[in-house]
Amino acid sequence: MDPISGRFMRKQITADQLVDGILKGDRLALSRAISRVEDDGESARSILEALYPHTGKAHLIGVTGAPGTGKSTLVTALARQYRQLGQTVAVLAVDPTSPFTGGALLGDRVRMTALSGDKGVFIRSMATRGDLGGVSVATSDTLLLLDAAGFDRVIVETVGVGQAEVEIAGIAHTTLVVDAPGLGDEVQAIKAGVMEIADLFVVNKADHTGVERTVSALEMMLEQKRGGFRQMRHHGEWMKVDLPPDKQDGDQWTIPVLKSIATTNEGIEPLQNQIEAHREWLLSSGQWAVREQMRIARTVEKLIQRELARRLAAALPAGRLSELILAASRRQISPYEAARQLVKGMRD
Amino acid sequence: MDPISGRFMRKQITADQLVDGILKGDRLALSRAISRVEDDGESARSILEALYPHTGKAHLIGVTGAPGTGKSTLVTALARQYRQLGQTVAVLAVDPTSPFTGGALLGDRVRMTALSGDKGVFIRSMATRGDLGGVSVATSDTLLLLDAAGFDRVIVETVGVGQAEVEIAGIAHTTLVVDAPGLGDEVQAIKAGVMEIADLFVVNKADHTGVERTVSALEMMLEQKRGGFRQMRHHGEWMKVDLPPDKQDGDQWTIPVLKSIATTNEGIEPLQNQIEAHREWLLSSGQWAVREQMRIARTVEKLIQRELARRLAAALPAGRLSELILAASRRQISPYEAARQLVKGMRD
Repeated sequence: MDPISGRFMRKQITADQLVDGILKGDRLALSRAISRVEDDGESARSILEALYPHTGKAHLIGVTGAPGTGKSTLVTALARQYRQLGQTVAVLAVDPTSPFTGGALLGDRVRMTALSGDKGVFIRSMATRGDLGGVSVATSDTLLLLDAAGFDRVIVETVGVGQAEVEIAGIAHTTLVVDAPGLGDEVQAIKAGVMEIADLFVVNKADHTGVERTVSALEMMLEQKRGGFRQMRHHGEWMKVDLPPDKQDGDQWTIPVLKSIATTNEGIEPLQNQIEAHREWLLSSGQWAVREQMRIARTVEKLIQRELARRLAAALPAGRLSELILAASRRQISPYEAARQLVKGMRD
Repeated sequence: MDPISGRFMRKQITADQLVDGILKGDRLALSRAISRVEDDGESARSILEALYPHTGKAHLIGVTGAPGTGKSTLVTALARQYRQLGQTVAVLAVDPTSPFTGGALLGDRVRMTALSGDKGVFIRSMATRGDLGGVSVATSDTLLLLDAAGFDRVIVETVGVGQAEVEIAGIAHTTLVVDAPGLGDEVQAIKAGVMEIADLFVVNKADHTGVERTVSALEMMLEQKRGGFRQMRHHGEWMKVDLPPDKQDGDQWTIPVLKSIATTNEGIEPLQNQIEAHREWLLSSGQWAVREQMRIARTVEKLIQRELARRLAAALPAGRLSELILAASRRQISPYEAARQLVKGMRD
């Protein structure tokens, strides 16, 4: 209702109007729909459902890597490259490090300056809230909006090294892992964790010393991996998707290790070529459909978890939870017993 | 059943034997119980329930910070300091970066060498599996075991910057955030995210240039924060715990910024003193009980989520899920509709 923030005005716009606007390429409608997704997934639900049939066309590219690798600059250069080829690009920067501040910490302003004034580019940052399952639901809902809005390429960038990164890789078609020479040992160790999610590696800051050592190290790690199966990206316990055989002769993707200097645009065109090559491979090998199904499976899983949590909250008698927690803190019952009693109460 | 791995032998040991062993200070029993927690929470359930009444004594100290700050060395030095004071210490290194490899990536061997041969120290690494809710359940189950085993101080160390870190801060009594001079801009930005979880800051590598600038930057951030309330650590949607008023005059904790050079042990004793001071404050202000209840609330929340997911899996007719996902990938239905149908099927 605040006339200054425009909060009241926003509420006046119906879901149908936003859907129409997004499909017509209205960027303001898109921004508002994303804000609704961020505010509360539920109020955006009808928008998402209406747009869903219009999705499935965008190539979703995940870009990830340790702090200090120059990811943001690389993403900006990549977006510019796509624009030169006449393709529209959306960039979603997901920041899983900031559940409290709610602000956008990534190099947004830098990017805005480099790409502003171009209607074929859309840039948005999103700080996650720390809710369990919140990272992926808000992110995949936003990706759905960007896809429906007709962008040819949607780049999802994550900072940080953790579960969020792996989750986001699970919803991208192509995952690019950015590395750089001269990072510390701990950062090197972290790379082992992202090894399994990478479709392409790029060693950025290739003008720094030690670049060849970094490239060799990555190639050695890849060499060790080869011969084994690519691990399934989705690792929910109960959510199994039928996959075509992973090993089809002559139809394997060989993970390349590229070099770039994003600040001077060096290596960006070859990188973009390799991303396109991966896209071609996904389509010709049938992996595109596989990844699509896995992505949907994850989304469904998260939606169900959220729904069940909501039902639990609604079913809990007021005060019952505090009572059980107090009893557990006094060691009268265990948390396991408290959980059992609460689940039982939900059923009755 | 493999005689080489000893898998068969391990199964022969009953839960009761492990419980007895842990309470008697048997380290092998403790290790085995932790392995059961890692393998599958369920097989450890009876052990955890039996030990729960014996918990609540250990001071749980979370240590976190960006890569390259020297956390592992600092934790080792801190553990040594506690040992000199005659207190027993357990160190749990949680690695949220590696859902796939399952290996321990932190500086385990280094620590082992520095602290080996001392029965008052127990060190364990744990790689998280990437399951939703897996980080916290396995971690808090292990903390329960370490607490029941009688360690005076339990240090939980996390690498990485993300949700796992915040979650682990939510289960510690005292959270120490480690910083270092000369880290990049992106790492600086990340600190904003951990600002809200810190009870103490320490700038390690204080012999490096730029240490005063790093200290000032932290103090400035803290200054900006002061006057506001400390944000609630727990941010689940439905899980509300009654808190005593956060603002009691003269009873506020002032977050200190310390300096250390862990490699030469400088600043470790003052750091340990401040950790003890925080412990005293927790106890005298009633915050110890508050944090205990919040920790229990989170554990109960995770347990319930896991239980509901299990029930869903059991209730799903074979093939139904694949069917719905295929339909969604063809845009015949939306993932939201698929989730609704699955939840509905669970109820019937």
